[in-house]
Amino acid sequence: MKTKVEPRTLPGFMELNPNDQVKFNQMKETIQRSYERFGFLPLDTPVIESSEVLLAKAGGETEKQIYRFKKGDSDLSLRFDLTVPLAKFVAANYNNLAFPFKRYQIGKVYRGEKAQKGRYREFYQCDIDIIGDGTLSIINDAQIPSIIYNTFKDLGFDNFTICINNRKILNGLFKSLNLSDLSTDILRIIDKIEKIGLDAVRGELDTLGLTPDAIETIISFVSIDGTLDEKLSELNDFNITDELFVEGVKELSEVIKYIRFLGVPEGFFTIDLKIARGLDYYTGTVYETFLDDYRKLGSVCSGGRFDSLAEYYTDKKLPGVGISIGLTRLFYQLSQMNAVKTSRNSVSDILIVPMNDEDIEECLKIASKLREEKINTDLFLENAKLKKKMKYADKWNIPYVVIVGEEERKTNLYSLKTMETGNQIKVSLDEILGIVK
Amino acid sequence: MKTKVEPRTLPGFMELNPNDQVKFNQMKETIQRSYERFGFLPLDTPVIESSEVLLAKAGGETEKQIYRFKKGDSDLSLRFDLTVPLAKFVAANYNNLAFPFKRYQIGKVYRGEKAQKGRYREFYQCDIDIIGDGTLSIINDAQIPSIIYNTFKDLGFDNFTICINNRKILNGLFKSLNLSDLSTDILRIIDKIEKIGLDAVRGELDTLGLTPDAIETIISFVSIDGTLDEKLSELNDFNITDELFVEGVKELSEVIKYIRFLGVPEGFFTIDLKIARGLDYYTGTVYETFLDDYRKLGSVCSGGRFDSLAEYYTDKKLPGVGISIGLTRLFYQLSQMNAVKTSRNSVSDILIVPMNDEDIEECLKIASKLREEKINTDLFLENAKLKKKMKYADKWNIPYVVIVGEEERKTNLYSLKTMETGNQIKVSLDEILGIVK
Repeated sequence: MKTKVEPRTLPGFMELNPNDQVKFNQMKETIQRSYERFGFLPLDTPVIESSEVLLAKAGGETEKQIYRFKKGDSDLSLRFDLTVPLAKFVAANYNNLAFPFKRYQIGKVYRGEKAQKGRYREFYQCDIDIIGDGTLSIINDAQIPSIIYNTFKDLGFDNFTICINNRKILNGLFKSLNLSDLSTDILRIIDKIEKIGLDAVRGELDTLGLTPDAIETIISFVSIDGTLDEKLSELNDFNITDELFVEGVKELSEVIKYIRFLGVPEGFFTIDLKIARGLDYYTGTVYETFLDDYRKLGSVCSGGRFDSLAEYYTDKKLPGVGISIGLTRLFYQLSQMNAVKTSRNSVSDILIVPMNDEDIEECLKIASKLREEKINTDLFLENAKLKKKMKYADKWNIPYVVIVGEEERKTNLYSLKTMETGNQIKVSLDEILGIVK
Repeated sequence: MKTKVEPRTLPGFMELNPNDQVKFNQMKETIQRSYERFGFLPLDTPVIESSEVLLAKAGGETEKQIYRFKKGDSDLSLRFDLTVPLAKFVAANYNNLAFPFKRYQIGKVYRGEKAQKGRYREFYQCDIDIIGDGTLSIINDAQIPSIIYNTFKDLGFDNFTICINNRKILNGLFKSLNLSDLSTDILRIIDKIEKIGLDAVRGELDTLGLTPDAIETIISFVSIDGTLDEKLSELNDFNITDELFVEGVKELSEVIKYIRFLGVPEGFFTIDLKIARGLDYYTGTVYETFLDDYRKLGSVCSGGRFDSLAEYYTDKKLPGVGISIGLTRLFYQLSQMNAVKTSRNSVSDILIVPMNDEDIEECLKIASKLREEKINTDLFLENAKLKKKMKYADKWNIPYVVIVGEEERKTNLYSLKTMETGNQIKVSLDEILGIVK
């Protein structure tokens, strides 16, 4: 006898059971429909790209995590995000596109990170980006929060906050204080303000060697608070004349104005002057989104404005703005907290079960009729006790079971069992249709 | 100035433009909905698996085509089909499933084939399989053609033929003639019968060294013709008593009986005694599907019954029956012949366009209202001439454009342009809703 191979799945790779996969797919499809409602076009780039193309821009940490290998003479890599493939696509197909080019892509990306709980090496990203040809109106930056708002509402969430900032404000602030070189360190420190308090932040900034004046400017900057309009007003009055800073404040004001036109309710978005997003390439508006009831998850949807999408492939200036939802991680985290809000629990709406072999013909006919009416219908046709058939319905969360026996065939009245209550009634096929629909 | 990298996509990898991707996605989603209508549960296994697990069964041609590589100490491979991952999943999760386990998986698989037109190295497979625990009723073999029928109808096809056979009939025939060793060669020859005619087939069989009696038995077998019932009757009367042959005929008769109960119209399925499917592991019913108007495409949906899904991972007997649609290749072929039957041409139902900057606020509000009504709505907000905005709508096949200017804002009557006809009328927002819906 042959030795068996252990049927294992690699660590860091999500493989859901079907009941969870139903929920995952519902979230994925909700996101897709929401993106399409805003007019984004689908793209589906290959998972494998030439390493030369994929790594044109990469370096450092990213490069180490890449799945890179040879096949014949080809040096290949698996995509590690959906932005580089978009840049490649836009640069390669520039003449065949109409701009602004709005695309969504929902697909798996690969990063060979250290395996740990909740960290995945293969995970879905759900991205949208709006790419301009040369220029791109700031109003697009306001559309993004409207998309985030509608998407998370559609996903079943009622309490979340879209935090908006503009990198030009931060960059201008640091520039005017001659602290551009220390910006990363300063951002890291002020990010802790809620945890450690103002005084501790002052202390840490002092350790960096900042002057008392600079420290006080930063402290009063991060202390800007109040309503949206109060924050904007304080920013407008803030004692910094740096051009970049002023431009950032103007852009942020415009974004807030247009978000309101788009009908996003106040309370779902705010200005957070501390957020910067780690990535180097954001140059204007930046976004982070927090589920208020699950704040510790961190941002569940982030992104921003960038000056140039595809500079490694083309001289064309292609400014853009976009966001990404890391669905695999989000689903994992929500599942851990029983916070997945999907309405769908099963594929099948109903299971048809024969009492005996003579009832099978009738079962097949009923199933075909229900399927014609677009009702997802499963059949249990194996030889088994009724109890086992019910366990099958229970396992796959099928809400209704129709049992067909001799009496049912004679009377054309079928036993319909509601699994949740155990209730069983005799109904006609039309009545079944009405109940299940 | 930096040298630019050429933004190229690897040969053998499909990367569609968004307008084609819309059609591709519609086909994919139609298949998914159809599979779900029959109660199949979703699975989404990793693209990367341990080589030991993935190649437990493989060998020969498959192994050469595999994308296999090392990451650290791990020997990894990309999946080359969706059946091996299913076998792994069922073996690993046996105790957590209810059987028969019906799963669908729609995903990309990887084969490093020689690049040639219409051959892809990355392609979608759309698979369903029904896996039994120990046994699996023959009625499941009849459900498969019902699924194929409904799926291809939903894909917009009206002329296609599902060809059904049973491997036991062929295997029994060859066994009773003591020709099992030559079965592959014989099948290859009789497959050419329509091309080269009966006499040439006789000649080629003679070259193989068959006795005249054996040749005549095979010829009379492949000459079985007529209606479904005539074929079954001829098979029942055929002069072979081999147990396997008789069992195969009995199974085929049952399958035909139950397909009829499931309401698949005659004319959409037939018995074709010549089809065998190359794969070794089919042991009973086999299927091939041909689009009658595009017969030269070959089979667009194939599969069959197998005795044992996961014997390399478990001692459990897991018989199954399933089919696969190779969507990437099918889409390519249909596109080449302008035979894609999708109804959807664009993501957006409507594009909203401001005449001037003062009209933007109104445009954003209209867009939000339409999106609330689940209408996919795009906005063109860049500074551009009206002509360019119309070209944008044209490029992305958006059927309607609403133009908002000063007059429109004053009267609340908007200019609605139907792109196909060029017709332009003044309508209220409610009327727009009615027209676009």
